[in-house]
Amino acid sequence: MPKFDAAGLLSAIVQHAETGEILMFAFMDREALDKTRETGLAHFHSRSRGRLWMKGESSGHVLRVQQVLVDCDQDALVVEALPEGPACHTGARSCFYRALEGDELRRID
Amino acid sequence: MPKFDAAGLLSAIVQHAETGEILMFAFMDREALDKTRETGLAHFHSRSRGRLWMKGESSGHVLRVQQVLVDCDQDALVVEALPEGPACHTGARSCFYRALEGDELRRID
Repeated sequence: MPKFDAAGLLSAIVQHAETGEILMFAFMDREALDKTRETGLAHFHSRSRGRLWMKGESSGHVLRVQQVLVDCDQDALVVEALPEGPACHTGARSCFYRALEGDELRRID
Repeated sequence: MPKFDAAGLLSAIVQHAETGEILMFAFMDREALDKTRETGLAHFHSRSRGRLWMKGESSGHVLRVQQVLVDCDQDALVVEALPEGPACHTGARSCFYRALEGDELRRID
């Protein structure tokens, strides 16, 4: 089963369950993983705010989880989800909307 | 530009540049990111060994980097790459070869 690190966290990569696009990256603690599995909606642990949060709790842009994959050393997850609305708080479809090119970031969405 | 955390690290998600499959997850420090960009081959920072490593340095299963994406808060990367051989040290195509189902892990590859 998943192994939480010294800070009690797992790395969680959210991937669109149909298109394969990587939507966002965040951390889960035990509580966030349990809530995600109980409700089917992605929950995370905010390191800066030190609390549980549900993606979409204020925006309504929830992530409906279809499947959770675990990596070989069991400290990282892929959360396959169907997003309701943009995944990024900026309004972008994905948080990964820029490419690193030379010394610049270029928008790709 | 990318922002390294208090430990000097970025989270790096490796995604197959053609299929979109998520292949592995690791960390990069400044040195690893610079080496990756200089050589076109993915390099990471091993937290357990405290050193730079190139994916494939012993197995030959290198990752040829096509593009690097940066997330909204600039502390996570998607490394789009073409793998030479399996990405996982277990021989699996991806490190994420199991799904979490109830209290079990089921192989999906």
